[in-house]
Amino acid sequence: MNPETITLSSGSMITVAVVVVIALIAVAMALRFRAEVLRARTGTDAMNQVAEAVQEGAAAYLRRQLRTLGVFAVVAFVLLLLLPAHGAAGTEGMLLRAARSIAFLVGAAFSGTIGYLGMWLAVRANVRVAAAAEESGRDPAMLIAVRTGACVGMATIGLGLLGAGIVVLVFRANAPLVLEGFGFGAALVAMFMRVGGGIFTKAADVGADLVGKVEQNIPEDDPRNAATIADNVGDNVGDCAGMAADLFESYAVTLVAALILGRAAFGEAGLVFPLVVPATGVVTALIGIYLTSPKAGVSALKIIRRAFLLSAILSAVMCTIAAFVHLPGSFAELGIENTTAAIDDPRIIASASVVIGIVLGVLILNLTGHYTATEDRPVRGVAGSSRTGAATVILSGFALGLESAVFTALVIAAAVFGAFLLGGAGVTGLFAIALAGCGLLTTVGVIVAMDTFGPVTDNAQGIAEMSGDVDEEGAQVLTELDAVGNTTKAITKGIAIATAVLAATALFGSYTDAIHGVLGDGYQTFLDQAVVFAPQTLVGVIVGGSVVFLFSGLAIRAVGRAAGAVVMEVRRQFREIPGIMEGTGKPEYGRVVDIVTRDSLRELATPGLLAVASPIAVGFGLGAPALAGYLAGAIATGVLMAIMLANSGGAWDNTKKMVEDGVHGGKGSPAHEATVVADTVGDPFKDTAGPAINPLLKVMNLVAVLIAPAVVGMSALSGDPNPLRFAIAGVALLAIAVAVWFSLGRDVDLGEEPVEERAVQEDAAEG
Amino acid sequence: MNPETITLSSGSMITVAVVVVIALIAVAMALRFRAEVLRARTGTDAMNQVAEAVQEGAAAYLRRQLRTLGVFAVVAFVLLLLLPAHGAAGTEGMLLRAARSIAFLVGAAFSGTIGYLGMWLAVRANVRVAAAAEESGRDPAMLIAVRTGACVGMATIGLGLLGAGIVVLVFRANAPLVLEGFGFGAALVAMFMRVGGGIFTKAADVGADLVGKVEQNIPEDDPRNAATIADNVGDNVGDCAGMAADLFESYAVTLVAALILGRAAFGEAGLVFPLVVPATGVVTALIGIYLTSPKAGVSALKIIRRAFLLSAILSAVMCTIAAFVHLPGSFAELGIENTTAAIDDPRIIASASVVIGIVLGVLILNLTGHYTATEDRPVRGVAGSSRTGAATVILSGFALGLESAVFTALVIAAAVFGAFLLGGAGVTGLFAIALAGCGLLTTVGVIVAMDTFGPVTDNAQGIAEMSGDVDEEGAQVLTELDAVGNTTKAITKGIAIATAVLAATALFGSYTDAIHGVLGDGYQTFLDQAVVFAPQTLVGVIVGGSVVFLFSGLAIRAVGRAAGAVVMEVRRQFREIPGIMEGTGKPEYGRVVDIVTRDSLRELATPGLLAVASPIAVGFGLGAPALAGYLAGAIATGVLMAIMLANSGGAWDNTKKMVEDGVHGGKGSPAHEATVVADTVGDPFKDTAGPAINPLLKVMNLVAVLIAPAVVGMSALSGDPNPLRFAIAGVALLAIAVAVWFSLGRDVDLGEEPVEERAVQEDAAEG
Repeated sequence: MNPETITLSSGSMITVAVVVVIALIAVAMALRFRAEVLRARTGTDAMNQVAEAVQEGAAAYLRRQLRTLGVFAVVAFVLLLLLPAHGAAGTEGMLLRAARSIAFLVGAAFSGTIGYLGMWLAVRANVRVAAAAEESGRDPAMLIAVRTGACVGMATIGLGLLGAGIVVLVFRANAPLVLEGFGFGAALVAMFMRVGGGIFTKAADVGADLVGKVEQNIPEDDPRNAATIADNVGDNVGDCAGMAADLFESYAVTLVAALILGRAAFGEAGLVFPLVVPATGVVTALIGIYLTSPKAGVSALKIIRRAFLLSAILSAVMCTIAAFVHLPGSFAELGIENTTAAIDDPRIIASASVVIGIVLGVLILNLTGHYTATEDRPVRGVAGSSRTGAATVILSGFALGLESAVFTALVIAAAVFGAFLLGGAGVTGLFAIALAGCGLLTTVGVIVAMDTFGPVTDNAQGIAEMSGDVDEEGAQVLTELDAVGNTTKAITKGIAIATAVLAATALFGSYTDAIHGVLGDGYQTFLDQAVVFAPQTLVGVIVGGSVVFLFSGLAIRAVGRAAGAVVMEVRRQFREIPGIMEGTGKPEYGRVVDIVTRDSLRELATPGLLAVASPIAVGFGLGAPALAGYLAGAIATGVLMAIMLANSGGAWDNTKKMVEDGVHGGKGSPAHEATVVADTVGDPFKDTAGPAINPLLKVMNLVAVLIAPAVVGMSALSGDPNPLRFAIAGVALLAIAVAVWFSLGRDVDLGEEPVEERAVQEDAAEG
Repeated sequence: MNPETITLSSGSMITVAVVVVIALIAVAMALRFRAEVLRARTGTDAMNQVAEAVQEGAAAYLRRQLRTLGVFAVVAFVLLLLLPAHGAAGTEGMLLRAARSIAFLVGAAFSGTIGYLGMWLAVRANVRVAAAAEESGRDPAMLIAVRTGACVGMATIGLGLLGAGIVVLVFRANAPLVLEGFGFGAALVAMFMRVGGGIFTKAADVGADLVGKVEQNIPEDDPRNAATIADNVGDNVGDCAGMAADLFESYAVTLVAALILGRAAFGEAGLVFPLVVPATGVVTALIGIYLTSPKAGVSALKIIRRAFLLSAILSAVMCTIAAFVHLPGSFAELGIENTTAAIDDPRIIASASVVIGIVLGVLILNLTGHYTATEDRPVRGVAGSSRTGAATVILSGFALGLESAVFTALVIAAAVFGAFLLGGAGVTGLFAIALAGCGLLTTVGVIVAMDTFGPVTDNAQGIAEMSGDVDEEGAQVLTELDAVGNTTKAITKGIAIATAVLAATALFGSYTDAIHGVLGDGYQTFLDQAVVFAPQTLVGVIVGGSVVFLFSGLAIRAVGRAAGAVVMEVRRQFREIPGIMEGTGKPEYGRVVDIVTRDSLRELATPGLLAVASPIAVGFGLGAPALAGYLAGAIATGVLMAIMLANSGGAWDNTKKMVEDGVHGGKGSPAHEATVVADTVGDPFKDTAGPAINPLLKVMNLVAVLIAPAVVGMSALSGDPNPLRFAIAGVALLAIAVAVWFSLGRDVDLGEEPVEERAVQEDAAEG
């Protein structure tokens, strides 16, 4: 059956329409939760003053970022219009390409909206959580934080499902092509928000700590530190806006991959069932969110984890029922004649794949918890090494990161392999992997809710500290909630990278599907050249891994650079504004926010360009088989690197908390000093480089899918020296080289000469 | 032409005989250099006392290690006898398998001998270098260090060439099969010596620094520190024995891969030419070594680099001449009918490939130098970040490591791709890659000489410091030579990983060649399943990358654990032996050596098992295509990880040296303290985990080559559930799981409970 000729029956249309209605309900619930949060009391004037400063800073940053992204979006829009699309010739083809470009803008807009909404609400919820902790105790405070997360979570899955559902309703069999644009828009914006937000949050955090804790010996969130407001702004633009956009993007891209492969593997039903699975996720997420109602005497973490588990079990049951209701009992009934599936029962394949994805989510939740929680052996081991100094803490945490990456990656690989065994070789196996991704998606609503919980409570604590208007008891409540937030943030990162791997693997299938479509009978040549041990493929694998390493290095370096600028500015303020340390002078918080905003937007460019241009350079330069190797190398190295960075960072963070809670000498001991160093090292690991790898993988995969027809069309496969092809690759390579060159060059400018000059001025001022 | 029917003409036999004679000359020259070193004066009694303690410790360690390896070797010998070998049936097959097993023992013995020799001579040269520096100045001191390196370098290439040459002389067309055993023996022993030596050297170093520099504030190599002798022993067993065995193994394995592929691609000439290339390397290495004669007024580094460059250029010229003399002008004349080569001139393909390898060596020399030398921007940037504390030094050095890994990996990838373009798809392209590896081998003699220079001068400085018998001027000479040694060590690591990648990529070709041989017409099925985007292959890529991460994590953790034991022992001695700090009591150096010896041999087991058992688990468990993906993932992740670890460690080392030389506050400043922390983090990066990845890659590849016929024979390809196959995979997996479990469990035993107990006892003793 030719996929392009599929028409949707009225039954299918009705199902998709129901999915769209469910998506609308999710959006409505998001608005309801938002209203609930905004109804809460906003606390004292001092609290509101701090909160408003954070709100202003965050809004200013995000506005500037979205404006910058607008330029990128317009360029991408035009390029996308020009890119050929397989199976879309003539006028209809033109229309489809236009639709793909418009879908790109919609996806980008949705991604930006989710990020903006998450940030907007979080900076309003933080002060309300602080006020509630002061006035009414833990449970009402926790409820506000949970509802904030619920709003963002519902909006994420609502908009994701809405976009995909409407495209399927309108474009039917051509939906996958249009959805490529939607997914690319979502992924591109999410990547920029992730990277920019990640650089912002950690530059402010590291800079604040270096001057505050290390040099001036004042506590975190101390109002005398000019970088505190920037630090609080950072929590919102990084953890809220960045993570929400990232998970939205995972959601959208997984759906896109599932629909592309579903059409090829299951025919008509394959365009509908991938929408049904996340739709059940909306329902179970709502149940999960209502289950996360705080109960007196039960630890907040336990409540959240229980809600996650229950909604996961419910999803598994509901999806299995949906598969048996919605799908026929054999491939023949699907209209598929040749299938590679191990079992001739689409219902079993579909439901088992979805369940694999859900089980994967639960496993990762526990694995990440094990490696980053203070109660378990690994972090206790790292804490033990703090007695022999910072170096041993860093070494043991780094080793923990490497090991945990391996176990998590192996669990994810097992899920991929399990789904593949169900579906068999060929497109059915790839669709099974995509369905596992959809299964994992059913938990995204709760995951986003859990993640948003973190920065809101963190900020609430900051506001309490800075305003000085929260008593001992309220502070205690906020400290407890903040610690819970740390763990939920770590878990979210684990799930996010799992969705990224499944989505990227499935997209990988879409890439070859696109090539198959263009090449037809010539496909076997491509297969022969894409064997993993062919030198060009192996070179591709090495280059793909290299991009992940370079991207991580650039992100970490960017944080160091921006943090250096913060340190210089805060030092300047301490020196030039009289009475800051005595509390009689007020630091200029806004200046620091401006500096971090400017620097992090500037630092965006190089990693962003690398993600978009490197698959273009490899594809056009070395050919389609090398590009396939490149994607495989990026996925494998990416998942390991992302988890290593996230978990070692998370473990160091909690090691510091353990020591601060009194282990191995407590606050102020040499062990504490050692863990502060390790925590600072971990900051850009866990909040900048690590999580940015998720959208990186998907942007690269989507670029590969989008350029595949052009690459193959320019005889990149047969090895003919096509000048246009090498010109495109050359331009892409040159762009990367120039960007990296400037990026590394900037490093020396800021880090050597001017700094030494300033240091001299400083000495002169002091002397 | 069926490769097994190749006979060697008398002309070829004579050429191979000449190669064997050249190999014998190399061995003779090694003996001559050895005598030259031993003739030098051995200094004062105090110096000799220290040197003897180091000699005893090193010999005791290496004897125990070789005994442990003996057990492993016997097991591997038997398993190898049982493994089927393709194309070797009946009595002749039995004989060939026996020969392969015997070659395994010879390879293992050669590898061990080289390591032992390197160590044996280095611990005798160190005291002579110290004495010469005291008595006669820089040039005679440098000459002894250079001659020591020359002896080990000549022995390395002499024995490697001798083994390969004799096997080709005796077994002719069957030589590749027998050589698999030779290479495996060399690689296995080298890996164990690398890992064990690496753990020993850094456990002693880190442990000595943690107690000495950090806790007691006494300088490095201070005789009051009980761990100093162990630290000096470590330099020899790690850098000398480990690196020499490692490079010998690279040499042997590259030759093996080249001969396997040469037979398939070039017929008879392919069994001879790969021996001719390194034979010219013997000549040019000798010239290079004689060029490294110290000249007054010229910096030692400049002399060494110039010698390397000159011998590289000479090699390129000589190999090109050899290709045009030795090879015919067309493939038809070689007896090859179907070739995929881009040019129908084997002479051009062969000489250009060799030149690519030589150029690669020169490029890596410069890249590594750029990233780790104190004169260049990168290390100066890291040093600049020391003013904001240890965390920023670590972050910027880590980013530097990531970035330098990318550029180095891309250069290596370009060399692979270049050779592949010359040879075209198929076996000729793979042979071209192997020839590039042979080209790189021509520099190994000089490289080993350069590398051995490092620990000898390092130890000479230690002996001078501990004996107190070297005056200011002599100390100055030794400090200069030590700094040169640091840089040459870093460069050697870069070259070593490049040889590893080329050898592994070529071996990868041997793996598929073996499968092709067994499957015959069924080979296309294997190809179809081994495309890089097939889920099982992609899972293999992820698992391969995981093994590199796990191996690195285990190695780093092992150092931390063993260093912890050193710290406890040195603390105990300070506490229990009266008068150590005053210089009236003498520490028990031997106790620390014993502890490190015991611990590092115990820590060997898990990483070693992982390397051997994981390809078995993947191959038999997931099948031959997944094993191919596994190898690709391991090579790509391995090269990036190895360079990242080596270069960030090297950069931190030199950052510390820069600050100690007076930049940013000099010795004792906060910046210095920050760089000491970073250097300690870098120690296991650059000297344990990083360099051990080289032999790891080759052991895994060779295991894959050896088991390929068995894996394919057990229908792992067709997916039939063969119980024996799953049983083998299960046993391998179980062995890894148990070893990792015990390894991680030991961590907690040593790192938590007992340490806390000891800490309590300590407190009690102090209180």
